Amino acid sequence: MPGLESAIAALSIAGVAVFAAAGALTASRKQMDPIGFILIAALTAFGGGTTRDVLLGVPVFWLRTPELVALAAGMALLVYFTAHLAERRFVWLLWADAAGLAIFAVLGADAALREGASPWAAILLGMITATFGGLIRDVVCDEIPLILRREIYATAAACGAAAFMALHALGVDRVAALGIGAALGFGLRGAAIIRGWSLPTYRARPGREYPEP
Amino acid sequence: MPGLESAIAALSIAGVAVFAAAGALTASRKQMDPIGFILIAALTAFGGGTTRDVLLGVPVFWLRTPELVALAAGMALLVYFTAHLAERRFVWLLWADAAGLAIFAVLGADAALREGASPWAAILLGMITATFGGLIRDVVCDEIPLILRREIYATAAACGAAAFMALHALGVDRVAALGIGAALGFGLRGAAIIRGWSLPTYRARPGREYPEP
Amino acid sequence: MPGLESAIAALSIAGVAVFAAAGALTASRKQMDPIGFILIAALTAFGGGTTRDVLLGVPVFWLRTPELVALAAGMALLVYFTAHLAERRFVWLLWADAAGLAIFAVLGADAALREGASPWAAILLGMITATFGGLIRDVVCDEIPLILRREIYATAAACGAAAFMALHALGVDRVAALGIGAALGFGLRGAAIIRGWSLPTYRARPGREYPEP
Repeated sequence: MPGLESAIAALSIAGVAVFAAAGALTASRKQMDPIGFILIAALTAFGGGTTRDVLLGVPVFWLRTPELVALAAGMALLVYFTAHLAERRFVWLLWADAAGLAIFAVLGADAALREGASPWAAILLGMITATFGGLIRDVVCDEIPLILRREIYATAAACGAAAFMALHALGVDRVAALGIGAALGFGLRGAAIIRGWSLPTYRARPGREYPEP
Repeated sequence: MPGLESAIAALSIAGVAVFAAAGALTASRKQMDPIGFILIAALTAFGGGTTRDVLLGVPVFWLRTPELVALAAGMALLVYFTAHLAERRFVWLLWADAAGLAIFAVLGADAALREGASPWAAILLGMITATFGGLIRDVVCDEIPLILRREIYATAAACGAAAFMALHALGVDRVAALGIGAALGFGLRGAAIIRGWSLPTYRARPGREYPEP
Repeated sequence: MPGLESAIAALSIAGVAVFAAAGALTASRKQMDPIGFILIAALTAFGGGTTRDVLLGVPVFWLRTPELVALAAGMALLVYFTAHLAERRFVWLLWADAAGLAIFAVLGADAALREGASPWAAILLGMITATFGGLIRDVVCDEIPLILRREIYATAAACGAAAFMALHALGVDRVAALGIGAALGFGLRGAAIIRGWSLPTYRARPGREYPEP
């Protein structure tokens, strides 16, 4: 199916580009140098998909695709030289992260299904593929992971992946299912950014800090 | 050996269940939403065993076992709806973590031996399998890793794995060796929780903070 | 090429030894117990190379090499018993980390080339192999990653890996290229430690903290 292959390649390129931008924006918050921008951009862009490929036991997607590495490095340098023009960098970061989250959620679920994972595992792998790039970025940069914020985050990835899988199971064309799933995930996360949408969070008592180790 | 297969499957199920509970309890301290509970529970429950499988180059254990994913998700929701009933959630978290630590230490060492790792590597892999689920949980949730606390932690995993391997080398039945190793690890960690047991820690001088980056 | 094999084995041994020492010195700052020293030393020493091997899909290098595990454990215990003799442990840590960084940068790039990765991916993999051991160490120990400091760090790894690859492409003997690349990376990082060398960092505006999650 060349149409499917092209759609997946296009989604991968888009996902790498937006996650690289989100990574570079985080690097700008940490006042890193250009090589630091490139490394953080690459870790963010490739972190989720690499985790997916390693868990599925398939070759890591960026090792033999120099264009993707060059794309991530190029986005990093673009942000290095232009980020001062942006009025509110953190908002740009949130939206770039949202786009990458939605794209990699469906790509992760799709890859898991191809490799014979169970549907439950495919949704979980979609969530992991969607969230790990940003997680690695925030852990390396010593930022509070976005996943800990109260608004919908992992839930958007789960819904996008689940929608893709439901549509696929219903016989919808795979390319359309990928697109609809990604759009749904992006819409949910976008609504959370704009309107602060959230699910009921656990509120019985906040956690106390661990006693000092 | 169906007895051995059953014993390993039972230990895996128990380990996933208690680590999922520990992960969900951490999610409750961070006031996450139900999907966040499920993601953190799954990362905790599957993190150590996944690291083990990836390092050994064998298929990841939860991808084709939908029951385990459902179990982790079910434990997460159970904790979401009942954790407010517990008087001291952090103590429950410590004990669930201790049980998972002990179980995955012997499972990790056993898997490493089967794949032809050296005995030293098998003990190290047991420690990694035991500690990585909790580490990923604490890193993602921005908590101080349990491994940094003064009481015995990694040591309990190492002793459990080493006891299993010593008994196995002495010709003891593998199922019995697994059980005794896990019981020893759990006992040691439990004693550390109750009585504050610790090995002599390095005390010459505490570390100064890194200068600000 | 026995000379090449020996050179790579020698570099691996040296890299494991210095990174194990760096990990144990970090453990001493956290006042851990001896088993904690061994675990952190092993995570630091094996973290980068393990990531490299997993990404390339080759067997993990330390599983069947008991000598390397024993070496890391021995370095950990040596530091446990002697670190109080050192006047300035953090400076020792920086230099041990610099040596490991330089060595694993060229080893990572070399391994990537052998497995058919593109040159861009090889440089990136060199950076990942060089930095991930220290990153895992700092994340587990709740320290600020060295990569966030202003002086040259990831850049030294990138330059060492790039120099190795340029020399190799020009037909220079592989062993010499490895040595020159590692020496260049170490020199750059050393100059950054001694003289505070840095590239122009992004300074338009410092990042504000994320709003509390």
